[in-house]
This record gives sequence, structure tokens and C-alpha cells, in this order.
Amino acid sequence: MHVEDPFLFQLFAIFVWAKLFGEVFERLSLPAVLGEILAGVILGPFGVALVVPDTSIYSVAELGAIFLLFTVGLGTHPKELLSVGRTSLYVALAGIMVPFIFGFSYMLLAHHSPHEATFVAAAMVATSVGITARVLGDMHVLHTRAARIILGAAVFDDILGMILLGVVVGLVSTTGNAWAQLLVTAIEAVGFALLMLFYAPRLVKRMEPGLERMSTHDAPLVISLAICIGLSYAAAKIGMAAIIGAFFAGLAFAEYSPRWNLLPRVSAINEFLAPFFFFSMGARLNLGVLDSGLMISAAIVCLLAVVSKLVGCGLPVLASGWKTAAKVGIGMVPRGEVGLIVALVGLQMNMIPASAYALVILMTAFTTLIAPPLLRAVFREDMAAEPALRHEQKTAV
Amino acid sequence: MHVEDPFLFQLFAIFVWAKLFGEVFERLSLPAVLGEILAGVILGPFGVALVVPDTSIYSVAELGAIFLLFTVGLGTHPKELLSVGRTSLYVALAGIMVPFIFGFSYMLLAHHSPHEATFVAAAMVATSVGITARVLGDMHVLHTRAARIILGAAVFDDILGMILLGVVVGLVSTTGNAWAQLLVTAIEAVGFALLMLFYAPRLVKRMEPGLERMSTHDAPLVISLAICIGLSYAAAKIGMAAIIGAFFAGLAFAEYSPRWNLLPRVSAINEFLAPFFFFSMGARLNLGVLDSGLMISAAIVCLLAVVSKLVGCGLPVLASGWKTAAKVGIGMVPRGEVGLIVALVGLQMNMIPASAYALVILMTAFTTLIAPPLLRAVFREDMAAEPALRHEQKTAV
Repeated sequence: MHVEDPFLFQLFAIFVWAKLFGEVFERLSLPAVLGEILAGVILGPFGVALVVPDTSIYSVAELGAIFLLFTVGLGTHPKELLSVGRTSLYVALAGIMVPFIFGFSYMLLAHHSPHEATFVAAAMVATSVGITARVLGDMHVLHTRAARIILGAAVFDDILGMILLGVVVGLVSTTGNAWAQLLVTAIEAVGFALLMLFYAPRLVKRMEPGLERMSTHDAPLVISLAICIGLSYAAAKIGMAAIIGAFFAGLAFAEYSPRWNLLPRVSAINEFLAPFFFFSMGARLNLGVLDSGLMISAAIVCLLAVVSKLVGCGLPVLASGWKTAAKVGIGMVPRGEVGLIVALVGLQMNMIPASAYALVILMTAFTTLIAPPLLRAVFREDMAAEPALRHEQKTAV
Repeated sequence: MHVEDPFLFQLFAIFVWAKLFGEVFERLSLPAVLGEILAGVILGPFGVALVVPDTSIYSVAELGAIFLLFTVGLGTHPKELLSVGRTSLYVALAGIMVPFIFGFSYMLLAHHSPHEATFVAAAMVATSVGITARVLGDMHVLHTRAARIILGAAVFDDILGMILLGVVVGLVSTTGNAWAQLLVTAIEAVGFALLMLFYAPRLVKRMEPGLERMSTHDAPLVISLAICIGLSYAAAKIGMAAIIGAFFAGLAFAEYSPRWNLLPRVSAINEFLAPFFFFSMGARLNLGVLDSGLMISAAIVCLLAVVSKLVGCGLPVLASGWKTAAKVGIGMVPRGEVGLIVALVGLQMNMIPASAYALVILMTAFTTLIAPPLLRAVFREDMAAEPALRHEQKTAV
């Protein structure tokens, strides 16, 4: 009886294929995440159907999304933002409002339902700064003012994006569109975020002595994991996305992460689980819906996604010259996990059709692919100044 | 639409309850693992049915077993065994054969089927040295000869136990009981083990330069995870238990674990997943099968489990005096994960009834609970000598 274990087979196949596509993408200087999604598109049920994920795999993928956002939260330090100043806050705020307004207006004008317009617009909001940080890091220009504004804005952007996602999910979940309900949902989401931002870290601080007295092996890791799952469940329970809870759980423990060595270990869990999330994401993309009409829509949404961030994030820093504005604007263009998850939530709640889901995935891929070459172009001048700077530092030592 | 997400709820409830029971057990100086299993017994479907795990949770539990054995393998260093000498090997060998013979004979005499007898006997074989190591560590007697023999024997015991499990699973999986098939299965299991023990580490060594050139973020961790899942799948595919593959994958990477920082990170994954495994294990225990007949069987199996290790592991070191023999014998008494997994495999393959599964869980709990007080009694003399030794060391410095 040589039993076939479909779960183990799917685990193995998905992990290996996702990482293989990721490796190829990395070697082509493209983001690995896009490779992992593409693996799902090609090998998944709408592609050659080599791997058709079952319920268990989708559950593992759900866990993957939770740990992805938990990791992002753990790596975010709201306290450091105070030093970056208000510029980043304004960049983040305008960088969220402009894409939302552009996206929402276009979708309504193109005769989509308000729910669909809301989800697609919300998916256009959140910047994924990972790609930008990596490109700028490779160019050794992370010390420039524009780079610091981008990194600061990205943190605000994450937090504001999460609050917006909470409002959107809560909003479309409520039946009817009464203003009272909108208000309740918004207060719920903002209240949850504020509680998490200001009260949770203090709670962790007060838990600290008790935690270190616990008999359980490695209590800090265990408690942080329990709180991550607990807040994810709580967020889903009050009508927001589970990942919002996971993100704020990470934020609450961010300050203690170095002391308890949380980030590297949670990252390991994420390293294992995330490929299932991205692969599943691709596996849900039905390329059959791509007709010429959708391609035109996709082109317009991609264009709006780029232009809206350029305008929204560039304007607040225009006083520093158009070059800085261009740098900041381009740096904020890439979208990533959060937008994808917004679309996924919409798809799972039957709030958006497969076509809108495809739209968001294409928009994410486009913004992620176009940003690196543009960034290299506008930051080239800082790079040229760099050897001199390093030389100075050396002689100063 | 405040959606109930049963998967997230079960994740949260199981993790928190398992860890809570574990914490209480730790505070009572009992092994946390037993607490996590008890949580499943009490809260699971055969208990108060507060948490009834669904397919996805059992899949996560399966992953938990795989990472548990991967972690054990990563922490095992076959090379160090060469220094411990042959005594440990003899202790391990006799400590495997005697319990197997005792268990198999009793089960046959008590009119159980040969398959049931084989599974229960195999579950009585593997020592789980964690409890012993912890008790001896707390007493500061890990440097004694008896302790070093125990730790060395435990490593051989793990490896031999895995080979035995491979043979047993392969054996009962084949239809019929022809000697030819027994031989094929045994050769398959031993061949797999030898390949993994001697060839796999060399393969990892040869992969090393390529690994460090890869573009994928944190390639060593990713590759080790891929190989862990791959070998688990391969082991299941050729008719052995998946965990055997995971264990040998760990063994193959053990040497490189410090360099690539694998153990702490894989342990984090294990820390998250293992509670689901132990809870599910308890959730499968049907206390309804416990009648007076089974209680008598359980008492006899528990007794045999203790006596057989005392005899099997004590005899090879009897030449060093009966005290050393008692120390080594008692140190090898606790059974753990491997035995439980053997029983679980039997249950899942419908090879053993719920009663035999209960038998193994009770035996594991009994041997784990009885060993620490006995160990403290026999090692007390070494503990008394300890302060003097530490004093000597201090004055020598």
C-alpha cells in the first residue's frame, strides 16, 4: 500500500516551483514575489493544472498571509517616524487619497459597481516599499533625503492602508450603505488601529516581567504567536481582514523584537509559509477572463496607479524641487502584498468578479516592474556623488 | 457580514489551550508535551468537544510532526557518536530489541493480531531523551559517565527507531507476509537510512558553494525546507512514514546548521506547529474505549515498557556496576513523539484499533511521568559530589 498523500505532494510541488520561479525572477533582477505568483498562474488550476491546491493548502496560504503581515508589522517602528518629520506623513496621506480617488472615479465611470470600484481603488492605495528599498540599497543612496522620506512615508502608508482596508471590508460587509453604518465601521477600524498603535505596545511592556517568569519554553515567541493569531481572528470577527490583526500584532511587538529575537524567527515561519500564499494567489487568477476590453481597463488602471502616486506623493515635496518630487513619487509607485490581499478578500467575499481580481494582479505586477528602472534613472546623480562621499568618510577616519 | 472563520478560530483555540495546559504542566514539573496532549483529550471531539479539528487543522498537525522530527534531526550529530564509543551503541541496540520482543510477545499472548502487536511493540521502542536530558541538566550531572552513555545511546536509538519504523510501516503495508516482501521492505528502509546517513551530508557539502551563490533570499533555509518536505513526501511514497524523511533531512543538514543558523529558525517553525500535532494526537484519543480489560492491558504494557528498557539498556553496562546499569536503564525509560507517531500511523492506516492507540498514549504518559523521580533518586549521589567538583574547578582557576 504505497499511499499517495496529496497534501504532502502539493506542499512539496508548490514550495519548490514557487521558489524556482522566484530564483529565476531574482536572476533577471525582477521581484521574486512576482515569480511565485506566476508559478501559481502557470501551474495552477487555470493554467496547466499540474498543482490544484485543495482546502488544506488554501488554509496554509491563509496562514502565510497572516505571517507575512505579522513580519511586516514586526519590522515597522512607529517611534522612528517621529524623527522623519511631517513630510513623510503628508506624502503618505496624499499618496493614499489620490490613488483611491483616481481608481474609484475611473471604475465608476467605466460602469462598475460601487463595491467593485471600492475594492479596486483600495487595492491601488498601499505602497510596497520593499522593491524600492532594495533598489536604493543596491545603489547605496539610502542616505539621501528623498530615500528617507520614501521609507518614512512607507511606514505611514502601511498603517493608513491597513485602516483603509478595515473601513472598506467593514463597509461592504454591512448591508446597505447608510451613513450611520459607514460611521460605525470607520470608527471601529480607526479605534482598533489606535488601540493597537498606542495601547498594545504598552500592554506588551507591562506583560514583559510576567513573560520572562513563565515556565513555557521560549514564552515571548509563544505569546507573540498566540497574540498574532488571536488578533487576526478578532479582526476577522469584527468584520475586518484577518491580516490587519496580524499586522498590528507585529507592530505591538516591534519594540521588543530585538530583545526577544522575534523577527528572524518569525521571518523563518514566513519564509516557509509565504510561497503558499503567493502561489495560491496566482492559482486563483483566471487568465480566461482577459479579453480586449479588460486589457484596455488594465492599461488604464496601471497608468492611473503610476500617475496617482507620482502626483499624490510628489506634490507634498514639490517645494524641494521637481527632482526630489520625481524621486519620492517613483519610489512610492510599487504596490504589493496589501493590494493583492485586498483583491483576494474581495474575491473571497464575492464582492468583485474574477476580472477585477485579474486587474489588481496586473496592476501590482506592472507597478512593481516599472519602478526599478525609473528609480535607477532618477537616483543616478546621487550614486555618482557616492564614491566621493565614501572617499571623504575614509579620509576622515 | 461578520464572517465566522472556523479555521482561524480553531488555530487560535488549539494554540492557546495547548500552551496553557503545557504551562500548567511545566509549573507542576511535568512534561509540557503531556499537557498539550491532555488539552486535546479534554477539549477535543471525544472530550467536551470545545474544539473539533477539521481537515485543515489535521494537515497543519501533519506539518507539525514533520517539523518536529526535522528539528530533532537537525539537533543530532552522528559524528559526535564516534567519540562516545560502542557502549552507547550496545545500549541502544539492546534497548530497542528487548522492548520490541517483550511488547510483541505480550500482545500476541493477549490474542491481538500480529499487525497490532507489531505496531504497539514498535511504539514501545524509541526513547525520548528530552525529559531525561532536562532532569539531568537541572541536577548538573550531565558530565557523568552514565549521562554521556544515555545521551549517546539516545541518538543511536533515534536512528535505529526510525529504521524500525520504516520496516514496520513498509511491512504491514505490503499485502501478505511473505519473507521476500519482508526482505525487500527491510532493505528499502535500511537502504534509505544508510543513504541518508552517509550520502546526504556529503551531498549537502557539495551543494554548499552553489547554495551560497543563489539569488533567492536566504537560500540555505529555503533549500533545507524544500528537502525536508521532499524527503517526507518521498518516504511516504515508498511506503515509510513521512516523518522518517523529515528526520533524515534534519540529519543531513545537522552539520551545517550552526553555519546557516538553521536550528533556531526551524525550531521557531516547530514551536508554532508542534502544539497542533500534540493537541490533535490527544483529540484522537477516545476515552470511551477504556474498560477494565484495557486498563489491565495498559498496566501490563506500562510495566513491560519500563522493565524492558531497564533490562535492555542496563545489561550492556552491568560490568560497570549495578548502579550505572540502573542509571542508564532509567534514563532510557521515557518514550515520546516517535512512539506516538508510530501509533498514529497505525491508527490512520486502520492497522490498529482505538484501544491500541489509547494503550500507546497511556504507556508514553506513564514512562514519561515515572522517569524523572526515579532519575532524581539514582543520580542524587552524583549531585552531592557536584559542589565539591565545582569548588575544585574554581580553585583551579
